Amino acid sequence: MIKAGIVGGTGYTGVELLRLLAAHPEVELCVITSRSEAGLPVAGMFPNLRNKLDLCFSEPTLENLAQCDVVFYATPHGVAMAGATELLEKGVKVIDLGADFRIKDISTWEQWYGMSHTTPELVAEAVYGLPEINRDEIKSARLIACPGCYPTAVQLGFMPLLENGLVEVDRLIADAKSGVSGAGRKANVGALLCESSENFKAYAVAGHRHLPEISQGLVQMAGTNVGLTFVPHLTPMIRGIHATLYATLKSDVDLQSLYEQRYQDETFVDVMPAGSHPETRSVKGANQCRIAIHRPQGGDMVVVLSVIDNLVKGAAGQAVQNMNIMFALDEASGLGGIALLP
Amino acid sequence: MIKAGIVGGTGYTGVELLRLLAAHPEVELCVITSRSEAGLPVAGMFPNLRNKLDLCFSEPTLENLAQCDVVFYATPHGVAMAGATELLEKGVKVIDLGADFRIKDISTWEQWYGMSHTTPELVAEAVYGLPEINRDEIKSARLIACPGCYPTAVQLGFMPLLENGLVEVDRLIADAKSGVSGAGRKANVGALLCESSENFKAYAVAGHRHLPEISQGLVQMAGTNVGLTFVPHLTPMIRGIHATLYATLKSDVDLQSLYEQRYQDETFVDVMPAGSHPETRSVKGANQCRIAIHRPQGGDMVVVLSVIDNLVKGAAGQAVQNMNIMFALDEASGLGGIALLP
Amino acid sequence: MIKAGIVGGTGYTGVELLRLLAAHPEVELCVITSRSEAGLPVAGMFPNLRNKLDLCFSEPTLENLAQCDVVFYATPHGVAMAGATELLEKGVKVIDLGADFRIKDISTWEQWYGMSHTTPELVAEAVYGLPEINRDEIKSARLIACPGCYPTAVQLGFMPLLENGLVEVDRLIADAKSGVSGAGRKANVGALLCESSENFKAYAVAGHRHLPEISQGLVQMAGTNVGLTFVPHLTPMIRGIHATLYATLKSDVDLQSLYEQRYQDETFVDVMPAGSHPETRSVKGANQCRIAIHRPQGGDMVVVLSVIDNLVKGAAGQAVQNMNIMFALDEASGLGGIALLP
Amino acid sequence: MIKAGIVGGTGYTGVELLRLLAAHPEVELCVITSRSEAGLPVAGMFPNLRNKLDLCFSEPTLENLAQCDVVFYATPHGVAMAGATELLEKGVKVIDLGADFRIKDISTWEQWYGMSHTTPELVAEAVYGLPEINRDEIKSARLIACPGCYPTAVQLGFMPLLENGLVEVDRLIADAKSGVSGAGRKANVGALLCESSENFKAYAVAGHRHLPEISQGLVQMAGTNVGLTFVPHLTPMIRGIHATLYATLKSDVDLQSLYEQRYQDETFVDVMPAGSHPETRSVKGANQCRIAIHRPQGGDMVVVLSVIDNLVKGAAGQAVQNMNIMFALDEASGLGGIALLP
Repeated sequence: MIKAGIVGGTGYTGVELLRLLAAHPEVELCVITSRSEAGLPVAGMFPNLRNKLDLCFSEPTLENLAQCDVVFYATPHGVAMAGATELLEKGVKVIDLGADFRIKDISTWEQWYGMSHTTPELVAEAVYGLPEINRDEIKSARLIACPGCYPTAVQLGFMPLLENGLVEVDRLIADAKSGVSGAGRKANVGALLCESSENFKAYAVAGHRHLPEISQGLVQMAGTNVGLTFVPHLTPMIRGIHATLYATLKSDVDLQSLYEQRYQDETFVDVMPAGSHPETRSVKGANQCRIAIHRPQGGDMVVVLSVIDNLVKGAAGQAVQNMNIMFALDEASGLGGIALLP
Repeated sequence: MIKAGIVGGTGYTGVELLRLLAAHPEVELCVITSRSEAGLPVAGMFPNLRNKLDLCFSEPTLENLAQCDVVFYATPHGVAMAGATELLEKGVKVIDLGADFRIKDISTWEQWYGMSHTTPELVAEAVYGLPEINRDEIKSARLIACPGCYPTAVQLGFMPLLENGLVEVDRLIADAKSGVSGAGRKANVGALLCESSENFKAYAVAGHRHLPEISQGLVQMAGTNVGLTFVPHLTPMIRGIHATLYATLKSDVDLQSLYEQRYQDETFVDVMPAGSHPETRSVKGANQCRIAIHRPQGGDMVVVLSVIDNLVKGAAGQAVQNMNIMFALDEASGLGGIALLP
Repeated sequence: MIKAGIVGGTGYTGVELLRLLAAHPEVELCVITSRSEAGLPVAGMFPNLRNKLDLCFSEPTLENLAQCDVVFYATPHGVAMAGATELLEKGVKVIDLGADFRIKDISTWEQWYGMSHTTPELVAEAVYGLPEINRDEIKSARLIACPGCYPTAVQLGFMPLLENGLVEVDRLIADAKSGVSGAGRKANVGALLCESSENFKAYAVAGHRHLPEISQGLVQMAGTNVGLTFVPHLTPMIRGIHATLYATLKSDVDLQSLYEQRYQDETFVDVMPAGSHPETRSVKGANQCRIAIHRPQGGDMVVVLSVIDNLVKGAAGQAVQNMNIMFALDEASGLGGIALLP
Repeated sequence: MIKAGIVGGTGYTGVELLRLLAAHPEVELCVITSRSEAGLPVAGMFPNLRNKLDLCFSEPTLENLAQCDVVFYATPHGVAMAGATELLEKGVKVIDLGADFRIKDISTWEQWYGMSHTTPELVAEAVYGLPEINRDEIKSARLIACPGCYPTAVQLGFMPLLENGLVEVDRLIADAKSGVSGAGRKANVGALLCESSENFKAYAVAGHRHLPEISQGLVQMAGTNVGLTFVPHLTPMIRGIHATLYATLKSDVDLQSLYEQRYQDETFVDVMPAGSHPETRSVKGANQCRIAIHRPQGGDMVVVLSVIDNLVKGAAGQAVQNMNIMFALDEASGLGGIALLP
């Protein structure tokens, strides 16, 4: 059994990690830390865990965490970079669900996240945990930077087009819509039911922190600079991201076949039949990305529809997928849950 | 492996049965019938099942179903009573999630359901599938009448009080609230999002079909006639039932202890700590009933709060629980899923 | 034109007052105060008011408010009692939408609200602003205590029964369900969309502040002590309260006629036809209470269904109704808006 | 008083027309027809209208309708073209909220709507009722083709750019999101709460009927052919459309000023301050379009955000606005309602 710990388990990615790891056949959940809630049983905060997980929040001490084989950080940015070095030195593998190690260019990171980065050497070491592109590096990694939720949906949607140089890269558009859980379990007025239900809006059009992360990934796929317009929106539901991607084709190819071949060995990417419209609810609670490809009226504009559950394939599920790969388990272990529908 | 079939799998209890049985370690799902959808892959109707269940709807013929060890009816009333006899004769066990065998008094059934009952002998044989009260009979049953969703929440909530003769039985009140999935996956205007979201209403106050079913159960527990006022309401969410129960205490007892003792061996009934308010989301997708007991201001009015997921402990999960008991499996087999929160 | 001011207009009752008063044909909205938002245009906080109301939040000074004919307090308890005396002395009428003057018994108020009451003489003077019972006193009042949202729905529902001594008063039950806007526009985790949508729960079963207020009103109607069990619930929608009321009849009367006669001259109470189930959405945004009366199976248990919009007839609309009465306007002036459906 | 009639008032645009016209100070609502509901009071179907509108559905006969000064068609396509000729001959003005007269090219219409057009001469006569571009023609029109909901939001968003030739017209993108009321008040499984809440999806990516209508409008503005990719999505709420528009700038202009000038005399188009993100709830129930313009990272991609209430500025409100213009009333008469927030 792999001994796992979680730092900062009081948010939505935290409780989703708890749900997945509590049911994982090869994991023993040993530690979950929260400074503010130390001593409280996790089921006291998350009633879905009653009788399912007999664990209390504890202080985030090195002693508590160093007993683990792997530690997940489900924390705001800035926390993982402060603690990872010590854990790695103790031989603990680290999977950060936050943003600390995602962006390779330190000054870019510092500009978007508004703080100095204290461990740039870990950024250099960290593997970006998108298994569909970095599986081999993940296998031998000590430190994983789990992709953000929007970046997962957008990169998986664009990947086959960019890897094959099929589209004009200077005017890529990602129009993305997220459920409210993406805003986290913090008390803020904008995420109140009375503010965010029966409402739809764009936000951060001028610039969202996931923009440089997505761009970095697209550049790597394309092997050249890209121009990306990324517009995130808030949609009145709990879970789910729907990315609608637009690009101009440079040549005429069978996109359906291209995508099917690219993802034929990927358990967690489902290329739907031609003409499909993937629904976010089809992945609710499941570690799955579903993709459909369209060329409206047969023109040269390709429209890719890509959906994930932001808390699963966009966060906790992908983290577990990375862990499975790092520890040479079946990549799908503990990730077989079927989406809850309706 | 137990070979299982489903008749009428195109509704919400049907897809929930599919979700549970597809992941059940000791079940092989062999047949799912739907006259209207014969030939269609189930994943074509329910996209959450893509790559999870490779099965097509087929015609509801005896030949198709008789190969099974157990057949679930997830159908409107009237269907199971037409088909169960033949299946039972072939040695197939039958679990009806509908209403055909729930009410022992045939004339009462005919009055509330508006049709003649064609197989009263099966009603006499059928075991009412509430394991918390009928576990022994279920073990040896050939035919199970699964309780309705409201009846499950209400009976589990009242049970300890009535079994022990602690309350006045002539003025019991069950004020129950259900998510919209209780109305089924039929095209009807009242269940449209635009009619049922941002709205709350009572319905069927003059009389709901679950009233005689609940009354029958309460009479059995109390050993005497009871007077019950049952008011169902529709609440704007997909899943969940919350029953708020009112009764007048006849004597002063430690209700918390009483409930904890009554349910101490019941895996799927969770008596919460004193002062709790169970939330329907804490059981979303899980085969669980959570109960809390209150005596406001220490008076003689007892208020019981009882929540279930209407599609799981109120339907498909309870059906699987019955199957597990009938086939001498671990009662919790395939039912360990943790509620999805948020 | 009546000059109106609002103290504390940054919550949901505040914005609803703004919506109603901005469109009121006989009101000039002069002042809206908010210490934290002084200087900000109201449309900057509430975008529905853009181009509809050219007013900025200002400091809550006596000077600002004393120019008004009437001042509405849309504040947490404790604020109105600190400011009302000075305004009344200046000849300004005061309508408190909060709880400071609702409960006549000072010690009861102090017990439930957890602070000392500094102006008990104003409590003695204040008229409880439920026009359907206190219209005459409201006409000549200087100070109005607007009823709470639950108390409005529950009292209007029970009133004809209690005024006529038709039911047993020792076991009244009010099972009430509220939309989330009742929790206000404060940043608290429990009111986040991700916590309160797709969820239903009871709360404060041990005792809610509206209990003593409702009891006080029922006692006045009944002319005797009453025993009330009040259980509030949170339902996943923005606006609306549905109260389901239970009482035991002492004699056989035509309840439908009784209610129709009691409310025949009340513009804002609609007794629906026999057999109806009022929906909260039928009053969304409207100053209306709709009521239906049932006797399930013709027994002696009467079930009253009473719905309001908690922000309108349960708060801002009722406040305007009181103002209309106090200033001898048409009681319905500015309150003719039709509920928004769907 | 203008005598108004409605054909087909049982859908959501119908009830919204009823709400607006019942409160319109210069309109007498005389007739509302529905073959299936003839004889039923409108308040029996739409409880928000109880005590607000004393009118029954009647048969859609010429005799009933010819008494009106204006008749609104709130019907599926094919109905208005069958009845308009006779009404126009009787001197009744006709405002069609459906699609019969929107598209000038008959063969294009027939291709997208799948039927023959029986009155092409009326298509030639009809004025496209987008007042912000066709106000003068509307003044003298007998027959108005009210724009579709998506076309209203998209055209108002693109208009200043195209009229001034500022963007490349061959790759315009409109990524639009609609609430579920856009699907109408028909019993269909896809619009059930359990299918469409907690879900987000694109639909009709291959081609939506509003595409040719939008293209026609954009071509007129641009004075040249345009290439448009239009992707509609369903978002889990009742009311509201949010269009996110993308175009590539050809020259550097002050877009904020451009939009403010273009719409400075338009009551129902609100250009928000630079950097804004309009919310659909800010127009819920109001005849308003709110627009914000962005150039992310100062690049040459312009992103326009345009929101309306699909039932008001996208249907019934715009129809009333057209009526006001046709009858030389104040254009805002009866349209002053403030959006309901929260």
